Amino acid sequence: VLDRRALDDVLDSALVCHLAVMVDGVPLVIPTVYGWQGDTLYIHRSTGAGTYRASVAGEPVCVTITVLDAVIYARSAFHHSVNYRSAIIHGRLRTVTDPEEQLVGLQAIVEHVAPGSWAVARPPSAKERAATAVVALDLTEASVKVRAADPGDEPEDIAADLIWAGVLPIEQSWGAAQPAADLLTARPVPTHVTSRSRPGVAHRAGTPLL
Amino acid sequence: VLDRRALDDVLDSALVCHLAVMVDGVPLVIPTVYGWQGDTLYIHRSTGAGTYRASVAGEPVCVTITVLDAVIYARSAFHHSVNYRSAIIHGRLRTVTDPEEQLVGLQAIVEHVAPGSWAVARPPSAKERAATAVVALDLTEASVKVRAADPGDEPEDIAADLIWAGVLPIEQSWGAAQPAADLLTARPVPTHVTSRSRPGVAHRAGTPLL
Repeated sequence: VLDRRALDDVLDSALVCHLAVMVDGVPLVIPTVYGWQGDTLYIHRSTGAGTYRASVAGEPVCVTITVLDAVIYARSAFHHSVNYRSAIIHGRLRTVTDPEEQLVGLQAIVEHVAPGSWAVARPPSAKERAATAVVALDLTEASVKVRAADPGDEPEDIAADLIWAGVLPIEQSWGAAQPAADLLTARPVPTHVTSRSRPGVAHRAGTPLL
Repeated sequence: VLDRRALDDVLDSALVCHLAVMVDGVPLVIPTVYGWQGDTLYIHRSTGAGTYRASVAGEPVCVTITVLDAVIYARSAFHHSVNYRSAIIHGRLRTVTDPEEQLVGLQAIVEHVAPGSWAVARPPSAKERAATAVVALDLTEASVKVRAADPGDEPEDIAADLIWAGVLPIEQSWGAAQPAADLLTARPVPTHVTSRSRPGVAHRAGTPLL
């Protein structure tokens, strides 16, 4: 059973997904940005890319999104691990042909990568839209796995009490925004950039999941 | 041509990889920890896992490792992007059968996930080693892609000079180490944990690549 709240948490916390397509009978895993709207995940590819050509063939694909939350230091080497949240989505890529949905997909991607940018950036031109394939993947066949726990050591190792064990959290944050070298006018960094929620944490969902 | 220094930088900066295997004719992308030694990438699977059974069949697999470095705010929606470093490794998984190499692989994985732990943690027991399949992938068929640049805006958008554009770096750090709830004796957090190099940055390589 899909826990949609858990899926939204993963979608919202990560910035890139890993898409596996088959190219000449061999899997290829591509990191790529994404966006989503309702039950549809959107990614974009250059229309010239071989991975796009493979995907439009309607072959089954898999998209995995992973957020790494902590390193687990256990008493035993065997129980060293990581805390993470991941979503695995199976399906077939659907090429978006409707111009309105193409724009919805592009907006979802841009707004996920850079919230607030869609309203201020120059919209995609006809030429840019022709060069961009927006592909959609149904989110209803997604499964979410979460490890958010202490070390899972053996009772005898806990009892032996020989070394420290615990959780070392990984935290993500934004560094100082660096203006483009070719920016003609010195401008303040816009508030949609300076006030951006930190990466690795869901910002759309009301209540944090973990 | 493989830039081994660039590959080492990616291997060293990330903690998990995304492994694609074929399961019943459909690609499956699994996030998993890894280690490496020389030209060999090691991952481990439970010997009972279906993904392990698929991999030992000798089917071609792909492992992709991605480090996300920044979000690119462009003048145009189209040129919004991310700065990243990624390695894509193609090959066939080799099941490690030699007990000594199995231990080398496990050590490489534990030392990558938690540097300094191998020397202090209880070593894997015979039972744990039997339950763990260590699989190896040759690193010589790896390719590395890096984007480490300003927005790639069109000349007319740069000249129009309507909005801010630039790079928002993503920084990773360690949070405060949390002792396991079942730790019997209050101990100081060991120095191999407190002094650990921050995630997302290569710590083995002498000179930073970027």
